Amino acid sequence: MIFFFLFCSKYVIHAHPEASLKYIFDVNSEFAKQISNRTGCEVANSAEEAINSADVDAVLIASATPTHTKFITMSAKAGKAIFCEKPIDLDIKKVNECMQEIKGIDVPLQIGFNRRFDNSHAKAQQARVNKEIGDLEMIIITSRDPEPPGIDYLNAAGGFFRDTTIHDFDLSRFILGEDPIIQVSAFGENLFDENVGKAKDLDTAMFILKSKSGVLIHINNSRRAVYGYDQRVEVFGSKGMIISENQTPTSVKKFTNSMTESKDLIHFFFIERYVQAYRDQFSDFLNTVKNKTKPKVTFEDGRNALIIANAAYESYNSGKVINISYE
Amino acid sequence: MIFFFLFCSKYVIHAHPEASLKYIFDVNSEFAKQISNRTGCEVANSAEEAINSADVDAVLIASATPTHTKFITMSAKAGKAIFCEKPIDLDIKKVNECMQEIKGIDVPLQIGFNRRFDNSHAKAQQARVNKEIGDLEMIIITSRDPEPPGIDYLNAAGGFFRDTTIHDFDLSRFILGEDPIIQVSAFGENLFDENVGKAKDLDTAMFILKSKSGVLIHINNSRRAVYGYDQRVEVFGSKGMIISENQTPTSVKKFTNSMTESKDLIHFFFIERYVQAYRDQFSDFLNTVKNKTKPKVTFEDGRNALIIANAAYESYNSGKVINISYE
Amino acid sequence: MIFFFLFCSKYVIHAHPEASLKYIFDVNSEFAKQISNRTGCEVANSAEEAINSADVDAVLIASATPTHTKFITMSAKAGKAIFCEKPIDLDIKKVNECMQEIKGIDVPLQIGFNRRFDNSHAKAQQARVNKEIGDLEMIIITSRDPEPPGIDYLNAAGGFFRDTTIHDFDLSRFILGEDPIIQVSAFGENLFDENVGKAKDLDTAMFILKSKSGVLIHINNSRRAVYGYDQRVEVFGSKGMIISENQTPTSVKKFTNSMTESKDLIHFFFIERYVQAYRDQFSDFLNTVKNKTKPKVTFEDGRNALIIANAAYESYNSGKVINISYE
Amino acid sequence: MIFFFLFCSKYVIHAHPEASLKYIFDVNSEFAKQISNRTGCEVANSAEEAINSADVDAVLIASATPTHTKFITMSAKAGKAIFCEKPIDLDIKKVNECMQEIKGIDVPLQIGFNRRFDNSHAKAQQARVNKEIGDLEMIIITSRDPEPPGIDYLNAAGGFFRDTTIHDFDLSRFILGEDPIIQVSAFGENLFDENVGKAKDLDTAMFILKSKSGVLIHINNSRRAVYGYDQRVEVFGSKGMIISENQTPTSVKKFTNSMTESKDLIHFFFIERYVQAYRDQFSDFLNTVKNKTKPKVTFEDGRNALIIANAAYESYNSGKVINISYE
Repeated sequence: MIFFFLFCSKYVIHAHPEASLKYIFDVNSEFAKQISNRTGCEVANSAEEAINSADVDAVLIASATPTHTKFITMSAKAGKAIFCEKPIDLDIKKVNECMQEIKGIDVPLQIGFNRRFDNSHAKAQQARVNKEIGDLEMIIITSRDPEPPGIDYLNAAGGFFRDTTIHDFDLSRFILGEDPIIQVSAFGENLFDENVGKAKDLDTAMFILKSKSGVLIHINNSRRAVYGYDQRVEVFGSKGMIISENQTPTSVKKFTNSMTESKDLIHFFFIERYVQAYRDQFSDFLNTVKNKTKPKVTFEDGRNALIIANAAYESYNSGKVINISYE
Repeated sequence: MIFFFLFCSKYVIHAHPEASLKYIFDVNSEFAKQISNRTGCEVANSAEEAINSADVDAVLIASATPTHTKFITMSAKAGKAIFCEKPIDLDIKKVNECMQEIKGIDVPLQIGFNRRFDNSHAKAQQARVNKEIGDLEMIIITSRDPEPPGIDYLNAAGGFFRDTTIHDFDLSRFILGEDPIIQVSAFGENLFDENVGKAKDLDTAMFILKSKSGVLIHINNSRRAVYGYDQRVEVFGSKGMIISENQTPTSVKKFTNSMTESKDLIHFFFIERYVQAYRDQFSDFLNTVKNKTKPKVTFEDGRNALIIANAAYESYNSGKVINISYE
Repeated sequence: MIFFFLFCSKYVIHAHPEASLKYIFDVNSEFAKQISNRTGCEVANSAEEAINSADVDAVLIASATPTHTKFITMSAKAGKAIFCEKPIDLDIKKVNECMQEIKGIDVPLQIGFNRRFDNSHAKAQQARVNKEIGDLEMIIITSRDPEPPGIDYLNAAGGFFRDTTIHDFDLSRFILGEDPIIQVSAFGENLFDENVGKAKDLDTAMFILKSKSGVLIHINNSRRAVYGYDQRVEVFGSKGMIISENQTPTSVKKFTNSMTESKDLIHFFFIERYVQAYRDQFSDFLNTVKNKTKPKVTFEDGRNALIIANAAYESYNSGKVINISYE
Repeated sequence: MIFFFLFCSKYVIHAHPEASLKYIFDVNSEFAKQISNRTGCEVANSAEEAINSADVDAVLIASATPTHTKFITMSAKAGKAIFCEKPIDLDIKKVNECMQEIKGIDVPLQIGFNRRFDNSHAKAQQARVNKEIGDLEMIIITSRDPEPPGIDYLNAAGGFFRDTTIHDFDLSRFILGEDPIIQVSAFGENLFDENVGKAKDLDTAMFILKSKSGVLIHINNSRRAVYGYDQRVEVFGSKGMIISENQTPTSVKKFTNSMTESKDLIHFFFIERYVQAYRDQFSDFLNTVKNKTKPKVTFEDGRNALIIANAAYESYNSGKVINISYE
């Protein structure tokens, strides 16, 4: 968490000279102090204080997931623009309540589905939008972490589908546009990681989803890929295909007596792979704050991805294809 | 059919100087005569005559699917080695009856699942066998035809899963080895082809299968890919990944003011893509005939792939994950 | 020039919070004012004033080439760290005089051969350093601009070999390390650009160089590549090969009915391709200033690259292989 | 030699059912007998006997290089079609004499520059012919053997440029078409192989050639590439570039914790890499015999490549760019 925040602060916020970090609040006051020392921001005595300060235009919510909805509501009522990390919450009831509470309040609110801002994935989406590949027929998403997290993370994260696959559900929705996902079939296994077993979680999963228009979507996930953070998106249509491939830190190819055209390992994890996407998402957020434009990822997007994740669990538990309702 | 047979004759049989085509029999006697003229073989008056001829060591069955089991039984009883095109039959009952009839007859019998003989797919399988990628965790098979067949073919072929996906079911079984497939979830759509609709068939499909040990397998199929015959196999394990990629007829890359590193179109269809696999499969068959070795694709392989296809239809029709029984 | 400076200021200097731009001086005072307005730095009344200011630790020389040596000398005598754009000068006599004038003055002095800081090219160099490819035997450098410059640039730039190929001569020296280049054979043509003809310059060139140990180096240059800024380095040795390939802004591949695996256009020009190299070179310069480390590109490197360029012209004019002396 | 001939016989001649091997003659009669046993052809008592036999339409000359011109003349005078391995001879005088002797005799005569028949290299040539890449400006040929030959081969082969680079000189001429090569600059080294040193030969070489229209051509050669037979051709023009890349025996890519997208080793040597080119060249030869078409590689092509090789030696020895005369 500390690491992530420092990353945020160094690469994301500071990369945007028009934004400055005014307050930090964290239940761990020692950590808050560290951030303050490094960035020059003030430590707030409470989230309320920071959120309601007249100096503050926008609130970044990167706290523990169960506190998200509370801070969203608080910020919205204070009339502040909101950037909230995904997921909104793991409990759809709390998400629905929050939705009710902030209904009618007109503040920019963006959910942290950063992959929409990756320029390669976005090109795949554009190929659907501008019909470059004709009519969309299939989407194949491969999304594998380099290594499993520790037991503490697993116990808190809310389960593989709601914590990890939720990114891929959102990416599917992003590519599909107005065409909603209406069915899901989910398979999951605990093939290799002991902690995952202890946490009654999964380390390997596959999904098929179907959109209203009949587009079929496949997602596969693993908590371990020895070659790095495997992030690929394939968009297939009546007139062609676009694949957003993995990326390597250099463009070298190596040839020896045992291999040819061997590339470097792909980026190790999300920080390396999506650093520019994080920056670009933050730029987009600043733009919504400044120009009151519609956020590219809305509260509804966050809610719908969670609904799909819940339906996926229902499928996994029942061995049935589940029809999804967004009401 | 004519085309395919000539291909067979020219590229497959004639490429093996130790084999010669003795008889041809076809219900279309005009076609049989053509083959005879081109290859110098004799036209048999009946399948029985050809199969029972003392000059004949082996029988190649490439007739209409419903006649396969009859000719298999006839050839086995005549003590002849048998090569039979896939599928054995579309009806599992006929396959089971044939299995009973030839029980205990010891003749080489190979089913035409040619992809097992492709050297790139075979390398992916070897990576599982020799643990090059550690323990197997996922298989992803992409298999798309360049364009849909005509209505006549569709009406006779027995449905997308039993005619097309059956290759991918077999390829999955080939890679898995002794680890049986025990579950399937199937999705199918008629997204673009009118004839497919008339034939009440599908043109787009996705599958998840699960093996006994928990390996998850994804297959996706389409009857149309404008860039050619898309045949990819990805094998993912605890220590790495092997991808058997598509192949292009040349190794050129093109760079213009609108693209870089653009390759040729991949091979158009199965003849171009698998010509060497067909030759190698026939070599293997000749080897089983000559040296009485075990065929690399057995009757049981043909039967099991059909059982999976049937379970896939059951899943597609019921919206449920189906448990597969091979009894 | 304005554009380049703003790029410098925005992406290079401002990306390093430990450095700030204190003064700008330019013979075009209007331009100096613009920079001042945008960056908050002061406009100096003369180069002398800026260079000799007590507030200034380091001087960045990006002025017209004929003024470089004068400012290097002035800065060195003022005890300031120096970063000077390549080439030091087009006239080896002036370079030699400058070398004499600053002899014994111990200030950091870095020449702007940015390609040494590209992480892909640097990996190729490392493969030589750490013997990853065994003993070095050949280097192949492809370096082509996207489009020819205008006539004004051509008239001022000092000729293709001294302005453009000089980067490749330096890159060759960088990869070779202690092994000096001792021979050159040069070919040049004016194949396509009218302005190049008017300026009595070249738009297409090829070179072979030889090192003392017998390593052979090939360089090819063009002033036009319709697919973008083509920058490739191949390092070949007794145990293998490393190729530093071109880079594209995204990782997408496109498949249509006329192409497969087509990538985006590679980066358009040096700004896009080497933005990170510029930043990293400036970091390295700041490091030499702060920690008094040896610059990665020295005055001698700048001088030697010019000597090779001059020998290349001699070869081009005489049709002979030229032996190179660095005295 | 034996190996090569058996390859020829098995993969090249026998792959063409319209051709049959009638006689074999070899100074090593034991070897001739072996071929006879395997292929069913007769052993001739002398080359004369075989060449003058009324049963013979065409003569394949794959004997020691110094005997080529004698057999070409003999075959031409006998009115037989001729296929002769490259080089025609190492001595331009003998080539010129042969040219005089067969002047006016109208028989098909093809020289074995097999690379013209490689479909990838041929696509690069077509890109020049049909102006797909606009006007031709540069050609870059990389041609490296996997490992050096033994001392006996080296002593007999006629030197690196005349035995090995001659293929690349011919390939350059093939791509250039009507535009003759008029200048050459050659560098050569003995960097690593002891036998090469003993034979006073070279193992590493680089060339620049220039065509009459100003196209610049670079060739680099090595007698050793640990990753296999490195055969690449890059054709660069005003509207784009075509690269004919290396080829691997499979299409697999491997990903582990130390590499990504690693391909198989490329083909080991010329037999593997150019097997189809050999077949296609022989088909073309049969076509010239049958339909009296013009051979795709003429006696003149063989002679001109030798003239360039001789000029390259002159450049190497003198340190000068050599102007080439074909008279």
